[in-house]
Amino acid sequence: MATDGDRLALGIGDDAAVLAAAGPLVVSTDALIEGVHFRRAWTTPADLGRKALAVNLSDLAAMGARPLAALLALGVPPATPLADLKAFFLGLRAEGRAWNCPLVGGDLTRAPHWMATITVLGEPPARNRVFRRDGARPGDWLYLTGWPGRSGAAREGLERIQENLPPAAKASNSAFRTPHSAFKDVPPALIRAHHRPVPRLREAARLARLGIVRAAMDISDGLWEDAGKLAAASGVRLDLSRDALPVAPALKRFAAQQNRDPLDWILFGGEDYELLIASRRRLDLAREWPKGKGIAPLHPIGRVAKGHGVRLLDAAGNPIVVPDRTWSHF
Amino acid sequence: MATDGDRLALGIGDDAAVLAAAGPLVVSTDALIEGVHFRRAWTTPADLGRKALAVNLSDLAAMGARPLAALLALGVPPATPLADLKAFFLGLRAEGRAWNCPLVGGDLTRAPHWMATITVLGEPPARNRVFRRDGARPGDWLYLTGWPGRSGAAREGLERIQENLPPAAKASNSAFRTPHSAFKDVPPALIRAHHRPVPRLREAARLARLGIVRAAMDISDGLWEDAGKLAAASGVRLDLSRDALPVAPALKRFAAQQNRDPLDWILFGGEDYELLIASRRRLDLAREWPKGKGIAPLHPIGRVAKGHGVRLLDAAGNPIVVPDRTWSHF
Repeated sequence: MATDGDRLALGIGDDAAVLAAAGPLVVSTDALIEGVHFRRAWTTPADLGRKALAVNLSDLAAMGARPLAALLALGVPPATPLADLKAFFLGLRAEGRAWNCPLVGGDLTRAPHWMATITVLGEPPARNRVFRRDGARPGDWLYLTGWPGRSGAAREGLERIQENLPPAAKASNSAFRTPHSAFKDVPPALIRAHHRPVPRLREAARLARLGIVRAAMDISDGLWEDAGKLAAASGVRLDLSRDALPVAPALKRFAAQQNRDPLDWILFGGEDYELLIASRRRLDLAREWPKGKGIAPLHPIGRVAKGHGVRLLDAAGNPIVVPDRTWSHF
Repeated sequence: MATDGDRLALGIGDDAAVLAAAGPLVVSTDALIEGVHFRRAWTTPADLGRKALAVNLSDLAAMGARPLAALLALGVPPATPLADLKAFFLGLRAEGRAWNCPLVGGDLTRAPHWMATITVLGEPPARNRVFRRDGARPGDWLYLTGWPGRSGAAREGLERIQENLPPAAKASNSAFRTPHSAFKDVPPALIRAHHRPVPRLREAARLARLGIVRAAMDISDGLWEDAGKLAAASGVRLDLSRDALPVAPALKRFAAQQNRDPLDWILFGGEDYELLIASRRRLDLAREWPKGKGIAPLHPIGRVAKGHGVRLLDAAGNPIVVPDRTWSHF
């Protein structure tokens, strides 16, 4: 595994690793479980390795933290080909290198299904001002990174196709593979968003430097549900402007083709790993937010108000009734 | 969950926890997976919660580290009774309180089977001199804590009885229960050792104060296999004295009743969570090691020599042929 002399005093191979931390630590853990968070039928072990780390790094981004190191507990079925294990670790290492987050410890065990639990350790932003969920205040401005909804749309498409596959095709579930021709109705851009989420660490670092974050979280359970959590933690209401919610072009096309409203996935899709931010002031995005350069766009999507809960407002500022349907891992 | 104001700046409920660490950290992760590490048919959720943390704390003990905090990723089947979840968390909390190791973060998800992955963070002993595996030198004295073999004997007994149960009894596998009358051939003392391993943190702290540890590890994969790992890491040979290996009275009785040699489990049983130590000098145990007071005895079990591998010696110092059979989670 990748190691880092500056951070790591003793690496993999002993009972535990020793990490040369110097101050407060941000720590988080998240598991990806086969049959719940992914299926071997439409993912590759390399993508799984990347994603297992990426979803954890997203939690660090949501705190404004910088990654330091990761630990992995991996369970795999006894008959797992060595090539799958190798690909998983190569994917994990590639993701770790991209974000300067070496794997410093682990546990490999037999399991009935693939399961990868990762724990990440990070260091807080300057002056230990981590992004929390409970700091939003009435009058704050709401921002959202990137392109929500694509991952949820891909998952729903893949699941539906899988359900309709003939039994023979389903039987091959136990082998990893890239989504094959049967899944071609789901656009590759959406599948990529589902398999290769990008933790918004660069965006979080930039937001920390701007010093405007009053509250933040990632929207891994879907924008609607997670906005509700931020509202509850902060004791405020979030007003989202429907027309301001960003619709990725690929999602727009997929929704039109499926005769659906892209909002279904933008609000309820989940597994987006975008950041929702309450800012103390309105940003001059053209001046304050870089375009391109590997940084996701930042979209103004609403305001914080007195009250509780979340509202979706139309162009005239009137509330739209939102059916209460959320997708959850549980 | 239990929190600790001195250590924890921000607890469960945000995207991540913030831990007020001040120096190097010892970190480790370990998973308990249903069907691999335990069966619901003969454990309770409370014991599972305790053990999930205890086996991780054992890794800290093996490094001479003091626990700071733990993170949990828990997967449970959708139909899990709330009472089981509650019991699991109460067990985990009780174990955490016993060792001053609060749970600071977690992830709860649906899973096909119970799976509990815990990550522990600890602080190194004085002057950051963590116990490593690679420091043993020829001439060192080998010590072992406590009573190895009991856990492995219990597991083997429980597994064998389970295999011989009528199908109707097996079907109740999906409910937690204490080992019932069908398992009464396995002595309660052995079952307790299997379900409630005690991490040797007190012993590790005492060993750290004595300043005599050149190498240490826990023997969770069995004394024979783990002694081999320590020998390989240190580039030495370990000579174990057969007659010096501690045989717990309950294990002795069980072995006699089963017409077996207790060494089968002492050497190969696994899941013992005792510590194997290479000491730079011979200890005057009567003077230097406390009796009782919740501290496990320390047994002198052999010497470190030039060479490689592990040997088992009889009373005359002659090697005994040891069949190569190890039990492994993989």
